[in-house]
Amino acid sequence: MSTRREVWVAVCLVLLLAPTSPWAQTDPLPSWNDGPAKQSIVAFVQKVTDRAGPGFVPPEQRIATFDNDGTLWSEQPIYFQFAFALARVKTLAPKHPEWKTQQPFKAVLDSDMKALAASGEKGMIQLLIATHTGMTTDEFTKTVVDWMATAQHPRFKRPYTELVYQPMLELLAHLRANGFKTYIVSGGTVEFMRPWTERVYGIPPEQVVGTSFVTTYKLGPNGQPSLFRQPKIDFVDDGPGKPVNIQKFIGRRPVLAFGNSDGDQQMLQWTAAGEGARFMGIVHHTDATREWAYDRQSHIGRLDKALDEAKARGWTIVDMKADWKKIFAFE
Amino acid sequence: MSTRREVWVAVCLVLLLAPTSPWAQTDPLPSWNDGPAKQSIVAFVQKVTDRAGPGFVPPEQRIATFDNDGTLWSEQPIYFQFAFALARVKTLAPKHPEWKTQQPFKAVLDSDMKALAASGEKGMIQLLIATHTGMTTDEFTKTVVDWMATAQHPRFKRPYTELVYQPMLELLAHLRANGFKTYIVSGGTVEFMRPWTERVYGIPPEQVVGTSFVTTYKLGPNGQPSLFRQPKIDFVDDGPGKPVNIQKFIGRRPVLAFGNSDGDQQMLQWTAAGEGARFMGIVHHTDATREWAYDRQSHIGRLDKALDEAKARGWTIVDMKADWKKIFAFE
Repeated sequence: MSTRREVWVAVCLVLLLAPTSPWAQTDPLPSWNDGPAKQSIVAFVQKVTDRAGPGFVPPEQRIATFDNDGTLWSEQPIYFQFAFALARVKTLAPKHPEWKTQQPFKAVLDSDMKALAASGEKGMIQLLIATHTGMTTDEFTKTVVDWMATAQHPRFKRPYTELVYQPMLELLAHLRANGFKTYIVSGGTVEFMRPWTERVYGIPPEQVVGTSFVTTYKLGPNGQPSLFRQPKIDFVDDGPGKPVNIQKFIGRRPVLAFGNSDGDQQMLQWTAAGEGARFMGIVHHTDATREWAYDRQSHIGRLDKALDEAKARGWTIVDMKADWKKIFAFE
Repeated sequence: MSTRREVWVAVCLVLLLAPTSPWAQTDPLPSWNDGPAKQSIVAFVQKVTDRAGPGFVPPEQRIATFDNDGTLWSEQPIYFQFAFALARVKTLAPKHPEWKTQQPFKAVLDSDMKALAASGEKGMIQLLIATHTGMTTDEFTKTVVDWMATAQHPRFKRPYTELVYQPMLELLAHLRANGFKTYIVSGGTVEFMRPWTERVYGIPPEQVVGTSFVTTYKLGPNGQPSLFRQPKIDFVDDGPGKPVNIQKFIGRRPVLAFGNSDGDQQMLQWTAAGEGARFMGIVHHTDATREWAYDRQSHIGRLDKALDEAKARGWTIVDMKADWKKIFAFE
C-alpha cells in the first residue's frame, strides 16, 4: 500500500466519521444583509453551477473580474497607490534636490494639497513615473512590500491592506468555492498590487491585470538578467482599456464583473454582452459613517454614467450602507 | 446525510477497494527514452515536490513556460500560423483585386515562394496584418477554428494540431500532475493559439502568452460592444520580449522553461537566474526522418547562440532522435 493511499484512507475516514459534516449548510456571505444584492449573487451562483439548469456555465468559463480601488478596498481620501507615490517622493527627496523647486514634487514635499491638485493628471503621471520607474522589477516590488508593512491609513490608522471590504472577501471566496477563477482588473498599476493580492484577496499575481509601465530586458556585467522599469506608460487599464486587457490577458469574456466607477463601465458592458448567465455588479459608496459616501460628483471613483446604465439595465447595485452588515473585518 | 456526502462515500469506497490502485507506479513519460534528458526532468520534478528536501518549491511558484513553434509542435516547412495567413490571403483575394499586382500578395496568389521569401520580414508582417486584423476578436477566432478543422499539413497530410509532440504532451501532463501551472509563451500571435490550446495541450486561453495586435473597444449602433483588431502590432513576444511578457502576464519567474531556438534564449536566461531549483530545456531538432533536422543555419527556428549557452551552462538539450521513442501520437 502506497503512502499516498494511506493518506487517502485517513482523509476518507475523517470525512465519513466527522460528527459535523463539513458540508453542512452555512451562509457563505455572512457580512451581507439579506437584501436584493445578496439574493442576486446567491441566485446567480446557484444558476451557473446547476448542471441540469439552463444557466449552467462550465467551470473553465467561470471567469470573474473585479476592479480593485473602491470595489475590493477603499480609495479615499486618495487612491492608496497615490499615497504610496507621495511617501516615495519624500523618501527619495534627498537624492533629488531639484524637487525642492520643481512641481508637482515641491507640492508633495510642502504637503501643499492645493498645488498638488492644480498639477492635475499630468502631475500625477509625473509622480508615478518618478516613483514607480527607473529601477528593476525586483527592486520596485521590495519598495511596495516595505511600504505596505509600515504605512497607515490617515483616517483608520491601520495598514492599507486592512481596508479591504469583508463582504467582498466573502464573495471572492464564495465564487472560488464554486469553481470561479477570480481576477483583478484595475486602473492601478499591476506591480503595485501583485506583491500582496494573494495574501489579502487570495488572488495570485498571474490573475492581476492593471495599468503597466514599459519594461526592458537587460543583461548586467556578469550576464545577470534583469527587467528594468522604463519611465513610460505601456497601457492604461481603465475604461475601454479594461475589456481590451481582459481579452489580452485572459482571452475569455467574464461571466461576472464587479466595479464601482465609470472606469468600470466598459468592463461591465463587455461582460453583459456575452451569451448565457451574466452578473454585473456595482459597489455604491453610500456609508459616510463607516466608510465614505460619494458618486456622481466625486473626483475619485466617480460613478455617474455607469450608475445610469446599471439602473437602466437592472445590474446589481450594492448599497454599502444597506447591504453590508460589516464593511471592514476590524469593525 | 447530504447528497454530496453520499457521493464522497462512493468515491472513497471506489478508491479504497479498487483492485488496482490508481497510484500504482507508472511511467509518466512513456514516449521518452531513458536517457539524460528524461532523467533530468524526472529528477527535477522529484526535487521541487519533495517537501523535506532543499529544492522544494511551493506549488503556487511552480510556473512552467513553453515556447510553442518547434517546442510543442512542428514549425516546418513554414510556421503553421504563416500557412494560415497564406490560406487566408487566397480566401480573401476576391475582395482584394489589387493583390493580383501587389507584393507580397501576388507572390502568395501565384504560389511564388521565391518572391515571397524576397519580401522578407516586412512582407511577412504585411501578410499577418492583412489576414489577422480588420475584424472583431470573435470573427478572427472563427476563422482560426474553421481553418484548423480542415487544413492539412503538406508533408503529413493531417490536421496541424496532430503535429504536436507526444513526449511534450506527456511532460505538460506530468508537470500539471505535480502542481505546475503550464504556460505557452510564443512568438506566434496569441489569438491564433487560444482557440485550440486547451483541447490540444490542456493549456487554457488565460495561460497563453504571445505576440499581440492592438485592439480597441467599440460600441455598435445598438450599443453592442466589440473588440476590433487594429492593423498594428502591440508587442512582439520573442527574444527579450519573452521575459518582459512573462513578467507582465504572469508576474512570477518560471522555475522551468522550454524552448527550441534563439528566440527563447532570454526566457531561458531569465528562468536560470532565479533562486532555488531551476530547469532549462531545449528541443533540438535532430531527426530528419521522423520530423526535421535543423539548427544553426535554419531560417525557421534558428538554434545557434542558445545552443552554445545551453552547452556552456549545462541546460538540458533534448535530442529528438535519441531521446524520443515517438514524436507524434499518430506514428
